[in-house]
Amino acid sequence: MRNLPATDRPPIVVAKYGGSSLATPEHIRTVADTLAAERVDGAQRVVVVSAMGDTTDELLALAGRVSDGPDARELDLLLSTGEQISAALLVMALHGLGVEAVSLTGPQAGIRTDGLHGRARITGVEPERIQLELDAGRIAVVAGFQGSTGAEIATLGRGGSDTSAVALAIAMGAVRCEIFTDVDGVYSADPRLVPQARQLPEIGFEEMLELAHQGANVLQARSVELAWVHGLELAVRQTGGDGPGTTIREIDMMENRQKVRGIATDDGLAKVTLLDLGDRPGMAASVFAPLAEAGIPVDGIVQNVGREGTADLSFIVLDTDLARTESLLRRLLPELGARDLAVAGGLAKVSIVGAGIHSAPGYPARMFAALGEAGVNIEMIMTSDIRITCVIDEKHLQAAAQALHLAFQLEQA
Amino acid sequence: MRNLPATDRPPIVVAKYGGSSLATPEHIRTVADTLAAERVDGAQRVVVVSAMGDTTDELLALAGRVSDGPDARELDLLLSTGEQISAALLVMALHGLGVEAVSLTGPQAGIRTDGLHGRARITGVEPERIQLELDAGRIAVVAGFQGSTGAEIATLGRGGSDTSAVALAIAMGAVRCEIFTDVDGVYSADPRLVPQARQLPEIGFEEMLELAHQGANVLQARSVELAWVHGLELAVRQTGGDGPGTTIREIDMMENRQKVRGIATDDGLAKVTLLDLGDRPGMAASVFAPLAEAGIPVDGIVQNVGREGTADLSFIVLDTDLARTESLLRRLLPELGARDLAVAGGLAKVSIVGAGIHSAPGYPARMFAALGEAGVNIEMIMTSDIRITCVIDEKHLQAAAQALHLAFQLEQA
Repeated sequence: MRNLPATDRPPIVVAKYGGSSLATPEHIRTVADTLAAERVDGAQRVVVVSAMGDTTDELLALAGRVSDGPDARELDLLLSTGEQISAALLVMALHGLGVEAVSLTGPQAGIRTDGLHGRARITGVEPERIQLELDAGRIAVVAGFQGSTGAEIATLGRGGSDTSAVALAIAMGAVRCEIFTDVDGVYSADPRLVPQARQLPEIGFEEMLELAHQGANVLQARSVELAWVHGLELAVRQTGGDGPGTTIREIDMMENRQKVRGIATDDGLAKVTLLDLGDRPGMAASVFAPLAEAGIPVDGIVQNVGREGTADLSFIVLDTDLARTESLLRRLLPELGARDLAVAGGLAKVSIVGAGIHSAPGYPARMFAALGEAGVNIEMIMTSDIRITCVIDEKHLQAAAQALHLAFQLEQA
Repeated sequence: MRNLPATDRPPIVVAKYGGSSLATPEHIRTVADTLAAERVDGAQRVVVVSAMGDTTDELLALAGRVSDGPDARELDLLLSTGEQISAALLVMALHGLGVEAVSLTGPQAGIRTDGLHGRARITGVEPERIQLELDAGRIAVVAGFQGSTGAEIATLGRGGSDTSAVALAIAMGAVRCEIFTDVDGVYSADPRLVPQARQLPEIGFEEMLELAHQGANVLQARSVELAWVHGLELAVRQTGGDGPGTTIREIDMMENRQKVRGIATDDGLAKVTLLDLGDRPGMAASVFAPLAEAGIPVDGIVQNVGREGTADLSFIVLDTDLARTESLLRRLLPELGARDLAVAGGLAKVSIVGAGIHSAPGYPARMFAALGEAGVNIEMIMTSDIRITCVIDEKHLQAAAQALHLAFQLEQA
């Protein structure tokens, strides 16, 4: 299928540009200028694009005006147009600069997915078409966020373009995968909350995953997982910027152990507690299966077994899902044998993230002390191998993040 | 491939909705309401949709902001999103009413085209997928204006959704093809110019073609040609209206002969005249081949052979193509051996249309007399079997159309 034996072929670089980097035709021309200038390195280039600016939200708003609960398959047909538009426009801009290029929809680019519309997973990439275009000297501009399942179009969920880029980089054997965005890298904390936050030159996959899961919002978590499994180094860089960005790679745990790398923050959360729940096998499933069926994501489950075999079960949902969660569980209360339900909205999570910090002594204590000194009350505590998370009142989030950033000396390299 | 033998299957109806009928989410919901109400007839329904309102122009404007001359293949990838969006939204609205429906892109609907991006012709329709959806009890909502050529998306040119609808109606063996638009049918003249214009209950294919070619703007001419060749009756009806509309069908020439059916009007034209052109074989080709290559459409060619074997050659172009035409031909003047070039912009065409009128005596004379009495000077005259056209100054177009409408008693049924 290929024109050149692999050894004679120039290296392949995959770059992904996010929606904020493509928000207007002027932004698109700027990206085209950058790509044209980069041609001097002689690499073959695959460029994955998101939808322009707020296009996806605008399309969702259109859907909301014709339907209360649009079908996922139809929503995919609708939303996939956003990336198709930016791909075509970027190629037109490249042509205007005399750069050979071709736009490809996800299906045309050979991105195959399962049939879970709206949150499809990539099952494989058939790279022949892209390789033909690259070997013909063209930049292949691929609509991110989408693929095909049979004759159908499926989308990968929010931030899916990151995963498109990583999957293509792996399938094409790319030497580099660069994620261009509107921030200049991954930070030790959200700079909007912590002005002293420092850009990290590099971070491990696992730490990045925790930061992303906890709301760092730079990269879709699935893309990091996929890169990790395949050992693909990712570079997060600012569109049009000249900074080095942040490299996400496998980092030797030894040299980084017992060091807090960053503060993750996430707001808009709510806590749900089932009181005096019968503590019998299968109980958790009878609570969470109906929530999963209703499409309500749940996080941070904590259960305390109390007196007489009953337990309080708490977990976190999005504030926007709280009303639905409450009415659903209230109907189930008799069946669950719980005494009552307590809910609290307006919460946030703040986490310290770093390889090895959970097993190292002293970190939890230092974290709780720093929050206490800052006057922040802790509602819930959750931990993973590389993260300690406290659920707090949303209005204390900034104070908490700043206190932790200071306590763990993150302003220092 | 099919679930039901053809004889057991309900009749198939194809309906096409234009962009003005789908301009907003509210318009789309209205169309969905209509389709839901029509379900009582038990027919299987294929609905072809155009892009919402001005979407195509907005996408073209975006393209214009990144490129001076976008590539036709890229433009097709861009523009095809417009119809995809309306198809998905209409299906969501139908689902909201409890009506089973599925949206299909042109490629998914099996519409195959040649590779002439931006003006592709339909080479065939593979109806299996649509038939499966219909047999499953769904309305198939198809994105008009587009099809596939291999793995590529191609568009059919402006108004191409009409042609999509007609091609599908033919391929599916539809009993009816209804074109819903923002006017309630075909008129004896443009009602904006001639307030007395009367809606025609029916019109022949050939007459409709002349009206459409001359600017009646109700149906893409190619769709009428295609319907004519296959004897498919077309109904033009107003979206949301309850009028009978206009039926376009094969009409026995005998009963309609020698009757003016309507007045066609078209403005924004220019006349180009090559003076004292050498009248030798191949001369016309050396004038028109370069224009065709430059993509400049030409109409109404008139040549008068004058004294000493030279001729004046006149033809009509769009006003917007005039500057390009003039500079192109001026460069060719020495090669063509023409003395000079004369151009005049700001012109219009007004035509009387009716089967048999060309061969019947008296019609041309009555037309010219009516224009003369209205003080309208005639720049050029062109005729076809069923049409007599006069080129006039644009500013006299309304007076000319009204005078002809009156002279040929078109206000009477």
